[in-house]
Amino acid sequence: MLSNDDGVRAKGLHELMEALRPFADLVVVAPDGPRSGASASITSDVPLHATLLYKEAGLSVYQCNGTPVDCVKLALHAVVPRQPDLVVGGINHGDNSSVNVHYSGTMGVVIEGCLKQLPAVGFSLCNHDPDADFAPLRPYVSRITQEVLRRGLPTGTCLNVNFPAVPELKGIRLCRQTRGVWRGEYEAHTHPKGGEYYWLTGYYDNLEPEAEDSDHWALDHGYVAITPTQIDMTAYALLDEMKGWKL
Amino acid sequence: MLSNDDGVRAKGLHELMEALRPFADLVVVAPDGPRSGASASITSDVPLHATLLYKEAGLSVYQCNGTPVDCVKLALHAVVPRQPDLVVGGINHGDNSSVNVHYSGTMGVVIEGCLKQLPAVGFSLCNHDPDADFAPLRPYVSRITQEVLRRGLPTGTCLNVNFPAVPELKGIRLCRQTRGVWRGEYEAHTHPKGGEYYWLTGYYDNLEPEAEDSDHWALDHGYVAITPTQIDMTAYALLDEMKGWKL
Repeated sequence: MLSNDDGVRAKGLHELMEALRPFADLVVVAPDGPRSGASASITSDVPLHATLLYKEAGLSVYQCNGTPVDCVKLALHAVVPRQPDLVVGGINHGDNSSVNVHYSGTMGVVIEGCLKQLPAVGFSLCNHDPDADFAPLRPYVSRITQEVLRRGLPTGTCLNVNFPAVPELKGIRLCRQTRGVWRGEYEAHTHPKGGEYYWLTGYYDNLEPEAEDSDHWALDHGYVAITPTQIDMTAYALLDEMKGWKL
Repeated sequence: MLSNDDGVRAKGLHELMEALRPFADLVVVAPDGPRSGASASITSDVPLHATLLYKEAGLSVYQCNGTPVDCVKLALHAVVPRQPDLVVGGINHGDNSSVNVHYSGTMGVVIEGCLKQLPAVGFSLCNHDPDADFAPLRPYVSRITQEVLRRGLPTGTCLNVNFPAVPELKGIRLCRQTRGVWRGEYEAHTHPKGGEYYWLTGYYDNLEPEAEDSDHWALDHGYVAITPTQIDMTAYALLDEMKGWKL
């Protein structure tokens, strides 16, 4: 089961289909337009529907009026004829490493698959260009996906796979999520009738650029970054520490 | 700095303001309407603005046309006159324990505060009623907030505090995130012109109802559940395990 956050027409999704078709039957349920930055948001105030766009041998493609997570939920509930073997998000046009995992609609897809106790993998390319070159990624996408299908993933875990935008990938590194902060996030403009309005922009500040085990380091150095990710967000160390608090 | 996902007019937000005003100067930047289920979503396709609704001694209230995370980002960038001491989300009308942390706009507020390296706490009441009774919560909200202001929180961590909807709270328990799954998530209806559409619904299936250290157990037994939460989602155990994979 495939989805994304750039919408059903995005090149990255079609590259993902082509990479997986040789060894998998695919059901695609993707948003009817861009949903970048949708995180794991869900829709409860309007009803959802999934519309079949086309069907070929081993491939059905639907569009849905919801968020990436809605797409997965509705796919599992009403579209996919059986429990899928794998949920895949992407290939995203843009970097989902480091703290971006929290904002990413592509990782929303993956986290939802994981919350449904299915193996789930997200693929992202660090290039926002709608016509970005995904060719160097294909053997990696194919290999990683097949390995996950073969081995499975522990319940509650998933993979966040990011590719640097370079013509020659240096190989794979297993990473942890980089500590970083988005800064200067808005550009202010003045409305013709007065008052300020703000466009989201900003730059990413890597707080540990020398950390060789971090996903951002891998990407900066031409490697594919695989960041194993989990849905349990409990801060266990703080939990222990707080036992000393007077509450 | 306060925000929520039920919107600037929600009772829970005003209960939060009243609980914190005795000891804090407050700047509220909250969505102009309901944003339940917004998760950590962000807006990049329309410009954002914050409008001052009213100002009193120690309290300024703004509404914003964005998501809960947008509210925090814009507040920190353009509204709050200095780096706030604390970011607080809530009080949410509805349960944000267990896996709901991933969908919650209230926890979006908290996670964004945490991503900006500020102490951050979210409060939620397990009752969706717009006129729910928040009175039993007030001493807890006050005490927990003051303790966090005094001690701070380790960078990268925040608190997810949930209250059961009971008249007499039994006290506080420190918890981990419960493992659970949402099931039967849609109700299908047939459109007058044909075709199915789906409303989000469903029920929560607690996969470990006997686990006394889980947040859902605490809530089920009348306790306030504090779940320390972290923004590092790396699955470290899987990272180690995958070193044995052939990739």
